[in-house]
Amino acid sequence: MSVSRSQLHPSFVKLFKEIVELTDDEFEMMLGHFNAFSIKKKEHYLKAGEVWWQVAAVNKGCFRTYSGDSDGKEHILYFAMEGWWIGDIESFHTGKPTNLYVQALEDCELLLMPKSSYDKLVVELPKYRDWYDQKVLKAYAAAIKRYSDFKSGSAEDRYNNLLSRQPQVLQRVPSKFIAAYLEIEPESLSRLRKKMYEK
Amino acid sequence: MSVSRSQLHPSFVKLFKEIVELTDDEFEMMLGHFNAFSIKKKEHYLKAGEVWWQVAAVNKGCFRTYSGDSDGKEHILYFAMEGWWIGDIESFHTGKPTNLYVQALEDCELLLMPKSSYDKLVVELPKYRDWYDQKVLKAYAAAIKRYSDFKSGSAEDRYNNLLSRQPQVLQRVPSKFIAAYLEIEPESLSRLRKKMYEK
Repeated sequence: MSVSRSQLHPSFVKLFKEIVELTDDEFEMMLGHFNAFSIKKKEHYLKAGEVWWQVAAVNKGCFRTYSGDSDGKEHILYFAMEGWWIGDIESFHTGKPTNLYVQALEDCELLLMPKSSYDKLVVELPKYRDWYDQKVLKAYAAAIKRYSDFKSGSAEDRYNNLLSRQPQVLQRVPSKFIAAYLEIEPESLSRLRKKMYEK
Repeated sequence: MSVSRSQLHPSFVKLFKEIVELTDDEFEMMLGHFNAFSIKKKEHYLKAGEVWWQVAAVNKGCFRTYSGDSDGKEHILYFAMEGWWIGDIESFHTGKPTNLYVQALEDCELLLMPKSSYDKLVVELPKYRDWYDQKVLKAYAAAIKRYSDFKSGSAEDRYNNLLSRQPQVLQRVPSKFIAAYLEIEPESLSRLRKKMYEK
């Protein structure tokens, strides 16, 4: 389903109009490559074994991205809300199947652009490519930070980092997933919350 | 100190001649921007608080990249050997101070290119930019993998992953750093090694 400007989350418009500085024509041209896609709570947008072939912006809702280990245990890598981009960039650029799962935690809407359009856009619209390259750099820096946080901090530090980076997570993500992200038991999360509340 | 072709590690030549497909002239032009820089075992190439302003390829030797937590404990993110690129890409592109440390584990040699040259090169030599963008994508994918490995696997899984990705690490990196990377005690690493050897 094609996308009209009125449907767009303000962060999407702000990004491309104010930060990437697309002209109105460029913005409309780019938007012409996107389609809106609805996905119900608990459904998966992406599963391990699939090849990911679309750029995907979260226009509405909240997702969790996770990997599964050989024992079937899930490990949450991050939560994504409005204004975030989701998917597996390695699968997108290599055509190899992903190891990741992306699941909707609410009724969600994505803005999707197929790789064939992306390939055209980075040539036709250098500002789009510049932005995309910057986005990958930022995503890379964020991945290093999460990895480093996870290695260096206590569960309390990780909780504080999550809180400062994505305060909305606490309202929108079920506790069991927050505990899973922190790799602690739900009871430990309750104790942490109580402790923070009493401070 | 400027760099002559005979000094270069074969992986560096192969990368730019065969993979990036630079012509001889393009290769020499790019090489003109690099300088060789020696660094003694145990010395730091980068420390938290510094701004990283150079592209850096490992021409000889082995490094560890680590972060420090508020308790002064070090957390090793990865080991880098010949053919790897080191530094803090976020600091490079934003001009903000890094949180990372990079230390030589052997007598090492780096090939360094200042950001001012990098900025020129990505404009003058589109093949260089294409390669750089691909490199960032791969580094991002590798960071996600390390983060995901670290979340999902046991110490034994992490050891096996390290072994399959960088077998040389076992010969070149002191056991205490391998144990630190796996976030286990040195005695647990000895047990793991014995177990693997008996398999």
